[in-house]
Amino acid sequence: MPMKRAVVLVSGGLDSATTLAICNRDGFEPCALSFDYGQRHKIELQAAKRVAASLGVREHRTAQIDLRIFGGSALTDEIPVPKVRDEKNTSDIPITYVPARNTIFLSYALAWCEVLGAADIFLGVNAVDYSGYPDCRPAFIAAFEDLAGLATKAGVEGTRFRIHAPLLEMSKAQIIQKGLELGVDFSLTHSCYDPAADLIACGTCDSCRIRLEGFHEAGQEDPIPYATG
Amino acid sequence: MPMKRAVVLVSGGLDSATTLAICNRDGFEPCALSFDYGQRHKIELQAAKRVAASLGVREHRTAQIDLRIFGGSALTDEIPVPKVRDEKNTSDIPITYVPARNTIFLSYALAWCEVLGAADIFLGVNAVDYSGYPDCRPAFIAAFEDLAGLATKAGVEGTRFRIHAPLLEMSKAQIIQKGLELGVDFSLTHSCYDPAADLIACGTCDSCRIRLEGFHEAGQEDPIPYATG
Repeated sequence: MPMKRAVVLVSGGLDSATTLAICNRDGFEPCALSFDYGQRHKIELQAAKRVAASLGVREHRTAQIDLRIFGGSALTDEIPVPKVRDEKNTSDIPITYVPARNTIFLSYALAWCEVLGAADIFLGVNAVDYSGYPDCRPAFIAAFEDLAGLATKAGVEGTRFRIHAPLLEMSKAQIIQKGLELGVDFSLTHSCYDPAADLIACGTCDSCRIRLEGFHEAGQEDPIPYATG
Repeated sequence: MPMKRAVVLVSGGLDSATTLAICNRDGFEPCALSFDYGQRHKIELQAAKRVAASLGVREHRTAQIDLRIFGGSALTDEIPVPKVRDEKNTSDIPITYVPARNTIFLSYALAWCEVLGAADIFLGVNAVDYSGYPDCRPAFIAAFEDLAGLATKAGVEGTRFRIHAPLLEMSKAQIIQKGLELGVDFSLTHSCYDPAADLIACGTCDSCRIRLEGFHEAGQEDPIPYATG
């Protein structure tokens, strides 16, 4: 019997790498889905490819989505990250917050599930995220599962879609520990919001800081090089 | 006091033109959203622009989305329309059915709502659609409203998102009558799945047939030219 397939959202970061490893552990054949939607995509998407390949993913698709068409001036108040990689380029657009982002991401994942005949979606949101973003909360995830059942032919025919968010209650340190336990090579992942021209992580932006604190708390060494620190 | 804005999905067809006119009638300032996602987009999107302009829309955005990345072979069984405009071009992709299409469309609309500070989305699905597509049913629409409240900062802060589907229970003839009553110029709309090289509607595909029957039943003449009939 072939393995059940699952769609896994893979960004190239720590969290989605661990989520992908958990999907493997849980006995699914992961189909990786990445999104090309903004400033950091080149680096992130390269990391996503490396991570997916290293964890044995055979199907990896990248969806081009351009949410910048909606403009962003109304969103700047919500930018949690002070650094923007390319300041020439639509500086109003927040680098980590995109309106309704997870709704859009999960919609694409659902579309691919329907094509694959899959019922499972893995998403690497975690406690750090859901303290800040409404579309990372358990209630949002449950509502999307309900919607998925109503939105699709498979759902109407009885498929119960499941959104797996295995990191939801985990700290960054716990995510790192779990990833290492499952064989994730974190040297392949990318987290920095503001890498230097040689793509070396800055070590000082919010994302680098959270990552470094996570490794420190986990009692592990971060295998990627940093420009500072 | 400025008018409340609403996001209206505008495809360039009959139904969304009438929906846009209803949005105007209901006292909203419509912001039109179209999608460039497939074979028919060039003609459809031109029609969408004409329709939006004719109904006084000041903000019209077109989102580029490429759902073909997911492939389509698993979907071919579900194609309700026998004609494909460009047979050279990924003939497996169904012309009217896209998996999770309305979920994706509404997700984008929700993103734009969040930027605009709007709470209302107008969608031209109707009884003909929802007899065939799961994501046109009232239960789907209600589930998306619930999701929207959970997915957004505005929702968390108390905004009650509303998905207006004013055509839901209407026949094609009723939609045409309502549109005419509200001043829609149906000569600007496009419905044909298989237009000739000069973009004249074929008059024989499913979409032309449903449209022509609707005008006939409404006792009206369709203002667009047809290649046959």
